[in-house]
Order: sequence, then C-alpha cells, then structure tokens
Amino acid sequence: MKALYFDGERAIYREDMPLPVPREGESLIRILMSAVCSTDKEILKGYKPDFTGIMGHEFVGVVEESPDPGLVGKTVVGELNAGCGTCLYCRTGREKHCVSRRVIGMEKHDGCFAEYMTLATHLIHQVPDGLPAEQAIFTEPLAAALEIPSMIHIDPAKNIAVIGDGRLAFMITQVLSLTGADVTVIGKHEEKLQQFSPYARTAVKADDTYEYVVEATGSPSGLLLAKDLVRKQGTIILKSTYAGEISIDMSYMVVNEITVAGSRCGPFEPALNLLNKSLVKLPPIELYELKDYEKAFHSRAFKAGFKF
Amino acid sequence: MKALYFDGERAIYREDMPLPVPREGESLIRILMSAVCSTDKEILKGYKPDFTGIMGHEFVGVVEESPDPGLVGKTVVGELNAGCGTCLYCRTGREKHCVSRRVIGMEKHDGCFAEYMTLATHLIHQVPDGLPAEQAIFTEPLAAALEIPSMIHIDPAKNIAVIGDGRLAFMITQVLSLTGADVTVIGKHEEKLQQFSPYARTAVKADDTYEYVVEATGSPSGLLLAKDLVRKQGTIILKSTYAGEISIDMSYMVVNEITVAGSRCGPFEPALNLLNKSLVKLPPIELYELKDYEKAFHSRAFKAGFKF
Ligand SMILES: [Zn+2]
Ligand SMILES: [Zn+2]
Ligand SMILES: [Zn+2]
Ligand SMILES: [Zn+2]
Repeated sequence: MKALYFDGERAIYREDMPLPVPREGESLIRILMSAVCSTDKEILKGYKPDFTGIMGHEFVGVVEESPDPGLVGKTVVGELNAGCGTCLYCRTGREKHCVSRRVIGMEKHDGCFAEYMTLATHLIHQVPDGLPAEQAIFTEPLAAALEIPSMIHIDPAKNIAVIGDGRLAFMITQVLSLTGADVTVIGKHEEKLQQFSPYARTAVKADDTYEYVVEATGSPSGLLLAKDLVRKQGTIILKSTYAGEISIDMSYMVVNEITVAGSRCGPFEPALNLLNKSLVKLPPIELYELKDYEKAFHSRAFKAGFKF
Repeated sequence: MKALYFDGERAIYREDMPLPVPREGESLIRILMSAVCSTDKEILKGYKPDFTGIMGHEFVGVVEESPDPGLVGKTVVGELNAGCGTCLYCRTGREKHCVSRRVIGMEKHDGCFAEYMTLATHLIHQVPDGLPAEQAIFTEPLAAALEIPSMIHIDPAKNIAVIGDGRLAFMITQVLSLTGADVTVIGKHEEKLQQFSPYARTAVKADDTYEYVVEATGSPSGLLLAKDLVRKQGTIILKSTYAGEISIDMSYMVVNEITVAGSRCGPFEPALNLLNKSLVKLPPIELYELKDYEKAFHSRAFKAGFKF
C-alpha cells in the first residue's frame, strides 16, 4: 500500500508498504482522509527521536475488519493513545497517560498517512451519519480544545483571554465562546485575528486582566504574557507544548493564588457532537495526493491533508 | 502602650507607643495573646522593605470599641488583609488580593504585638464561647491550611502527599486527613515526623506517586520533589512562598496535564469550627512577656507568642 514512512530522519513516500495486520482487539481501518498536524512537522524536526514508522494521527476512515461486527463498514475517527490496559493510568481512566503507551504516528504505532491502519477497537469513534469527512477530520484537534472544559470548570460569568491566533487558538476560541463567557483573543497578526471576530473580541494588545488565560502560542513569550494578564486567584491553561524547558516564577503564583493547568489531548465524543450540530465552523481542508506530501506539509491553509 | 515596633531594620521594644485610634469602620481591640509567625521573622530579614510599624498578625483579643455594638466585650480573632473596598478584587470577594490592601503587621497597618490594635470591623471573627485563647490563637495558620480545600476539590478516594515536616505541614496534614483521604507526609527529620503519625503515613523517602502533592517546605527542592511525586493529571498545591524566584519546567506540566495551584491565606470561620469541635489537635503555645521578644523569636516550640 501507499504510505508516508518516517525513517528516523525524514519522510519517505512508499508504495510498497505491506498491509497492516490487526493485533488482538484491533480493527483494520481503510483511510479515507488524513490531516497534517503541527506535531507531524515537529517529528520531521526531531521531536520523536525514537520513532520510525508511518506518520500521521488525524484521520477519517472506514472499518474493514473488527472484533466488533457492528463497526464494520462504518465511517470512524480514532484516538491516538493506545495504553497497556493494566498500569495505574489505564486502570483509572487515563489511558492517554499510560506509562507504556503506543501513539499512532508517533510512538511504536504506525499512523494514518497510509491506505490502511490498525487501531485498538475501543479507541474508535463512529462518525454521525451525514457528517462529512471534511468536517469529521477536525475531531482530534477539536477534542484537544474540549480538554479545557473537560478538566476545568469554566464559569461563564468570568472573562477569558486566549493568547494566540493560530489553528489551536481558533478551535479553543470557538469551544470557549459556546459557554457564553466573554472571550478575548490576543494575537500578533491583525489579518489572522479577523477570522476570530464572529466568536470573540480580538486585540493585538490586551487592555484588561482575565479570570482564565489560555496560552496557545507555543512560545515562551505567550507564557509570560499569560502571567501578566491573569487575575489573582485566576487560572492559566497551558495548551501548547514547548520545545525545550520553559520556566515560570512560582512565588508569584503562590502569593496571587494562581492556578496553572497543563492540558493536552481531549475527549472525542463531545467534539463529534459539536461538529454534528454545526456548533463550530471550520474552514475547508486542502487535500493532496499522498505523494505530494511536501506540498501538504508546506501549505499555508488552515488545514491540509491527504485524500485516498 | 507596650508594643514591638519595626523601624525598617530591626524590632524595638517600646512602652511609649500611643494608643491607636480606630478609623471609620474599624474596631479597637485589646490584645490578650499574640503569636509569632515565620512571616514575622522574614520581616526582620528584610521581606517587607517598605514596612515600619508594630509587628504581628496572629492574635486573640477583646473588642473594646466598635461600630457593631454586639461585638463589644467579645473575644475575637481577625483577618490580616484590609482591602480598599472598591477595586475589582474587593468587589468580587477577593479582598485579600486587593491591589491597595493594608496588611496588619506587614503593610501600612500596625500589628498585634501590642496591648491594643485597630482592625476593620468586617475582618473580625468572634471566638466561640469556651474555646480557650491558647487554641483560638491558631485560627490564622489553620485558615491557611483550609485554603487548600477551599480552592480545590479534594476527592477523598485519591491519595495525597504533604512535603514538609514543619508547622504549616502539620496544620495541612490534619485538615486533609479529615477528608478521609490517604495522606502521606514526606519529611527530612524522623523525630519531627513522629508527631504526624496519628494523622498520616510518614516517610523520609516516598515510594509511591500521588494525585495531590502539597508543597509545604518553602524550599526549591520541595518543588522539584513535588514534580517527581505527582501523578499525571494530578495536582500540585504550593503553600509556601519562596525567597526569590523559583521556576519549574512547564512543558512537563502540559504533557502530563498537571495542575499547579498557588495557595495562601484562608477562611477563618471553618478554622474556628474545627478548633471548637476539637477536630484538630495543636500543641500548647509557649508564652512570653513582650519585652522578652527575642526569646519568643528564637523559641523552638511549635508556637511561641506573647501574653498581655
Ligand atoms: Zn493533531
Ligand atoms: Zn497503561
Ligand atoms: Zn501567620
Ligand atoms: Zn481593593
């Protein structure tokens, strides 16, 4: 089959990859569409030095074989983190934090930039009838935004700042604006900020302080700005992982009773619900042939991906 | 009157201080007993470079004059932070975070190491009948421990580590053990740890990981240990302020979805309730004459203070 393979140093387009064989409990999925995520670009820069295998973790596919006969033929999306099933985290509902997890397209698990992929069946979620693949493909990044209200009680009577004007910030802003809270997006680029205006106030420079501040820039300056903008007894939510160690003054957090919460992958079902109910609006995905992967990786579209 | 006055550099015992005159809305309190806190020692080391005035913030007294006639003659304790009444924080129930607050014994407000003190009447709490001053004197430090369950939902089904074997850790351990949770105190001193054994497991070296980790040592090593001990998706609670900036790697917090919450002063009423119901057990306070303040400051007792 066709696949985009990472050999530890670079991405290689291959047409000779063997069809994957499901392990016990896994299903075989035929990929309809997959999308490039910033994490995939990070892998090419050396973010996962131990990984070799097929790249990609955002997909929509059709189940071809499964231990669950009800799934066969269904259009599905799937979660990234496949746990061991027995460690403390797997036993307490935190499979994505499993100490020996495999992660599709990133860690000991082939990904979805291929015609077929296998996945543990319990990680598969059915796409609601009528929801087009072009929308369902956003389930994983939207779930990451939904991890915020999943972890933290958002009081809609309190104001929120989202720092960042990229894709992640866009998803987060839409999700948080659904609470009814007063949301302000603080970004560097006037033209990027325009797309946020149906959902939030926008500003290049903040002129207020906020009860919740979501850091979604991925840069250390975003974290420092979050510290300046958050109110005493407020909450900073860190959504972006940083290349390298990023530090912050903790004495300030104690004196001002500020909470700093790290947040990563999130729940798929509410993401599918929001997409199905058209409660979030997402720009069209730009689709390429897999062999044109370099175009997809360098695309400036909101989202780029592959059609199979 | 007698008072211990801080002139910006050192503590001076004086007998010639004028009786304080209550401002509008304030009450006049005759001090029965006051206690030395680690913050007082920090002030002597230069923690509050702008402060001059009477030291001390932990007290039990009797109201002599008040705009609230029901308070006159009553035994009381009182909160430290006197807000402006009009700023964002004062208007939203966060007076202790008032941007222009006065703090007794610390900031623009004379303290309780004196025969008399004035205090905003709404900061005064009546001591329940029958609760001796020797117990009520612990209200303020106990309130600081109660700020943890006040800020954070503690699930009693999850385990807790308290790092530190000092006074603050002792209060925190008792409060958290009342939840029913499995609490482990991790300290450096075997002999100090013994006093915790009625309330918690004790350990010099941790052999588990924890859902909640309370850092109560005040040293950077405590913060690093907290990071090592906390479980993924767990919570670190920082109770101690640090001299200088202390930093922590935030990428680790994002990837592991750890929440770090700063926590400071707390609610007085639940502290008085716990003391009144004898639900916390505190060692006797060691009492001195005010003129012997150096003995009190250097005492190795669990708590030392002054009797008037
Ligand atoms: Zn992704
Ligand atoms: Zn596991
Ligand atoms: Zn104190
Ligand atoms: Zn105020």
